[in-house]
Amino acid sequence: MRTFEEIKNTIETGLGKHPCDLRLTNVKLVNVFSGEIYPTDIYIKNKRIVSIEPGAVLEALETVDCGGAYAVPGLIDSHMHFESTMLSPEALSSVVVPHGTTTLCADLMEIANVAGEEGLRAMLQSIDRLPYRMLIEVSSRVPTAPGLETNGATLGAEQVAQIMDWEESVSLGELDPSKILFVKDEYIHKVADTLARRKIVNGHAIGRLGQELNVYASSGISDDHECVTKEELLSRLRVGMRVLVREGSTERNVDALISGALELGCSTDNLCFCTDDKHAGEIMEEGHINYNVRRAIELGMAPMQAIQMATINAARHFRMDDEIGSITPGRLADILLIDDLTKMEPKAVYFEGQLVARSKALLQECAVSAYPGWIKDTVHLKHPITADSFRCPAKNPDAVETQAHVIGLIDVQIINNDLVCTLPVQNGEIQRDLDNDILKLAVVERYGKTGGVGVGFVKGFSLKKGALAYSMSHDHHNIVAVGVNDADMAVAVNEVARLHGGLAVACDGKVVSSMCLPIGGLMSECSAGEVMRLLDDMNEATRALGCDMPAPFMTLSFISLPTVPELGLTDMGLVDVLEHRLIDVEL
Amino acid sequence: MRTFEEIKNTIETGLGKHPCDLRLTNVKLVNVFSGEIYPTDIYIKNKRIVSIEPGAVLEALETVDCGGAYAVPGLIDSHMHFESTMLSPEALSSVVVPHGTTTLCADLMEIANVAGEEGLRAMLQSIDRLPYRMLIEVSSRVPTAPGLETNGATLGAEQVAQIMDWEESVSLGELDPSKILFVKDEYIHKVADTLARRKIVNGHAIGRLGQELNVYASSGISDDHECVTKEELLSRLRVGMRVLVREGSTERNVDALISGALELGCSTDNLCFCTDDKHAGEIMEEGHINYNVRRAIELGMAPMQAIQMATINAARHFRMDDEIGSITPGRLADILLIDDLTKMEPKAVYFEGQLVARSKALLQECAVSAYPGWIKDTVHLKHPITADSFRCPAKNPDAVETQAHVIGLIDVQIINNDLVCTLPVQNGEIQRDLDNDILKLAVVERYGKTGGVGVGFVKGFSLKKGALAYSMSHDHHNIVAVGVNDADMAVAVNEVARLHGGLAVACDGKVVSSMCLPIGGLMSECSAGEVMRLLDDMNEATRALGCDMPAPFMTLSFISLPTVPELGLTDMGLVDVLEHRLIDVEL
Repeated sequence: MRTFEEIKNTIETGLGKHPCDLRLTNVKLVNVFSGEIYPTDIYIKNKRIVSIEPGAVLEALETVDCGGAYAVPGLIDSHMHFESTMLSPEALSSVVVPHGTTTLCADLMEIANVAGEEGLRAMLQSIDRLPYRMLIEVSSRVPTAPGLETNGATLGAEQVAQIMDWEESVSLGELDPSKILFVKDEYIHKVADTLARRKIVNGHAIGRLGQELNVYASSGISDDHECVTKEELLSRLRVGMRVLVREGSTERNVDALISGALELGCSTDNLCFCTDDKHAGEIMEEGHINYNVRRAIELGMAPMQAIQMATINAARHFRMDDEIGSITPGRLADILLIDDLTKMEPKAVYFEGQLVARSKALLQECAVSAYPGWIKDTVHLKHPITADSFRCPAKNPDAVETQAHVIGLIDVQIINNDLVCTLPVQNGEIQRDLDNDILKLAVVERYGKTGGVGVGFVKGFSLKKGALAYSMSHDHHNIVAVGVNDADMAVAVNEVARLHGGLAVACDGKVVSSMCLPIGGLMSECSAGEVMRLLDDMNEATRALGCDMPAPFMTLSFISLPTVPELGLTDMGLVDVLEHRLIDVEL
Repeated sequence: MRTFEEIKNTIETGLGKHPCDLRLTNVKLVNVFSGEIYPTDIYIKNKRIVSIEPGAVLEALETVDCGGAYAVPGLIDSHMHFESTMLSPEALSSVVVPHGTTTLCADLMEIANVAGEEGLRAMLQSIDRLPYRMLIEVSSRVPTAPGLETNGATLGAEQVAQIMDWEESVSLGELDPSKILFVKDEYIHKVADTLARRKIVNGHAIGRLGQELNVYASSGISDDHECVTKEELLSRLRVGMRVLVREGSTERNVDALISGALELGCSTDNLCFCTDDKHAGEIMEEGHINYNVRRAIELGMAPMQAIQMATINAARHFRMDDEIGSITPGRLADILLIDDLTKMEPKAVYFEGQLVARSKALLQECAVSAYPGWIKDTVHLKHPITADSFRCPAKNPDAVETQAHVIGLIDVQIINNDLVCTLPVQNGEIQRDLDNDILKLAVVERYGKTGGVGVGFVKGFSLKKGALAYSMSHDHHNIVAVGVNDADMAVAVNEVARLHGGLAVACDGKVVSSMCLPIGGLMSECSAGEVMRLLDDMNEATRALGCDMPAPFMTLSFISLPTVPELGLTDMGLVDVLEHRLIDVEL
């Protein structure tokens, strides 16, 4: 928000009482407010746009001839999680900013689940040094599935209300439908406190339709980023929710939703873009929000509308349109210079009036802060983990086979099917069915609290040998492991613990490859380039074990979510998501 | 804003745990959020919409078959002043609600200029009884033209910030450009305090263009309701301001602006509707915001877009879209049943789930409150007013004529021309030029503070005999009088004072007709019907004196505005509006 001094300085500069810092001449302004593109100059002073008036003559300390490039407002990712990139906020800047994203609306629920309010503060420590803006979607569910999981911290209604008062906080983060449909007072308080502050509530209406969706919307939820079909998109608009069209690493919804919206002839006013969870490597390769825009244009959307979705629509949605989302007087000067709107590749990125990236690279790397010691020491196993930790006894120890729930992966989706499969029983324990790609999945409590291990089965992982483990298991962020045998699962889990968090691949009783993520067990202290190199090695090692998934560790991190239908797995056991209760693996 | 209890009740009702209060069956829902019209039922409980799901089956205590009527969200007047109607908020309800307006965004600057914060509180005393919603645009300029006028009260920055915290307050009311362009700290503080509360700042950019408009917008101003041409409309959109398209009694901008927007092919997302100042009689005759919508449709706009301008666009503009502006779950149930969208005549009006009007009439009149005694005793002349009070001495007492500034009325506009005319001088005093319809205009201080009388000349009033006076002289609300002779002007002014505020017509030394407006000298305690009857009599009496203006008293109340170019007149004298200073009548 602008201070008195800032407003006064902007006014006085426009009146010619002070020189501007910068004049961008010879631009084609993409005015997302009026919906026009026209040539003009842009004057900037102290982070803000002073004038866009064609023919205005103001003094400026520096003039840049933009050679007729389009001037596009900085792009806004309306919903994302840092932790999926494995990068710190500092390291992520080199990945997203050169692609033109200048505002991230971040739900920091992962670090909050590990380390609570102090974890949030640690993530914000570098906020003033970042070459982009971080706005906070205050995590609504810490823990996400109380009673069904063990996590590291709790944010109650009172604490959420306090965090909501932080200047960076713009919304209550993705509130899942079960909290509303099961009428949980704590979450209704969080909604009421948020609306009372004139902030909004983000939704997470995965799979919900009809009267359930009406009830969900009626509680004050403003958006959904979990749409996967055009019918879902339309159903959200009808109940007064905006749709954040997502293109993440595993969740790729732009094609279906944009084609659908064009086919339906929907107005695009109520559509924004987000990435939710996207690996750094994929961002570097194909782009970030600029990819969503480019793809929408390829699918037939007018460039102006696609750009509006990524800028002014998101700014309005978060009630920040007086600050960001358009290149108009008084707004913060987040400006991309782009030669070809259909390509959306910025040749220069200005953040708050400063040139921060040119030709796909940051001008200056943003050094990773010295994170406090306690946040790098969050992984503690209560008991040693061995192959026996993953035993799965059958109800009838004498049976030779049994009917069991199996988590059935669905290609590039985070939802899964509750498959009922016949699994062999040997020595009184339910076994994997390797011929049918049914592997064991486990979640190991890692806060040193209960030592619980939840065991289940998963189909579709395609691993032929060994095991993988990862300390980011949404949203409680215990250690999740998948494996062809129990011994390798134990090796992988123990390696993750040894590293104070991270990823591990094990085979034949040995660690094949591993990578540490010390910040809360979720994020690296390394640069983006280093993390991508390490992750490539991990993926390579996974492929060598026969796994053909495009992003096996991201899939692993979501596969067990106790809030995404149909099945979840936590340290407490298998979860029937829609019923919000623990169930037996066996029928 | 919704309380915890309200949200919980809405959720539980949607889940079938409580019966709904009302089911509107067989409607064609005008869904302004999705931009569609489709058949469904609407379920309502405790003021709010519970479900709009086609085919939903919920219990309801009452069912109304709407016979296939369109269900349209209640209309929003995005900027208006009660005082122009001469009616109390209670009495106004019978005028606007049957036309489908369920939310008034009111700038109560008139009563604030007379009686300050206490005046505002008095206006809000009946807010819970009204069959519509009153939202407050907190008056930014009380007084409007400090140093150029005497008024009744002052609202400084600190007081405005306190009022901004009231739940009803949604914005800072129409801040005029001089405050920004002359860099007045007090007003910049008001803007900063408003933005810090995530509320918006309404503009009043009359006649401003180019770099001045850029400077004005750069201060954080969000809208303008003073556009009169399509070029002005486009210029506002370009600098990131929404346009509130106005249709008042004298200011009729819908035709030019809607035709212009259609011609320019502008997106309508950034357009809303308002009335600003519209007489009750005209509202009853032609309609209120429904008139703006109807006329826009006649001019070629699609009904959906015209209705969106009057509903969701305004709700979003004021960041109230989680509460009003669409018929979607959780929002307040303001619903119009309409048979023909192109006519926009509601056959039923529901406000917060209650049927309040049917067939163009309120179901139940809203009784006018007992206003406190002090607010009915606000008109005090410091000195007796006689014909001599209006003397206008020439600089050269021996001259026979002189060059003088004359306020030149412009048909149906509140702006005026600074005409320089040759006026006769007799006995050392500048005289009227009745042959050229140049009459004397005066403003008499009425707070008992200075006894000042400002005297000037006006062309275009068409009065042939006698004089008129009115205690609403924008925005200071002293007594303004126009007359063919000074004696009748004195009679009219004294009658207004005797009535503790109101209107008077005098001729040949006698009061011909008068009408009292005791609430702050601005509003009547009578019903709308009674006020219109009285006003008709006043207009009749005025016409009998030769005046052919359509709304002579409204014109009289605006004619002297010291903030609307080019000339103003206050109790201190003639004002050069653009220069913001007092000037002599004579050149």
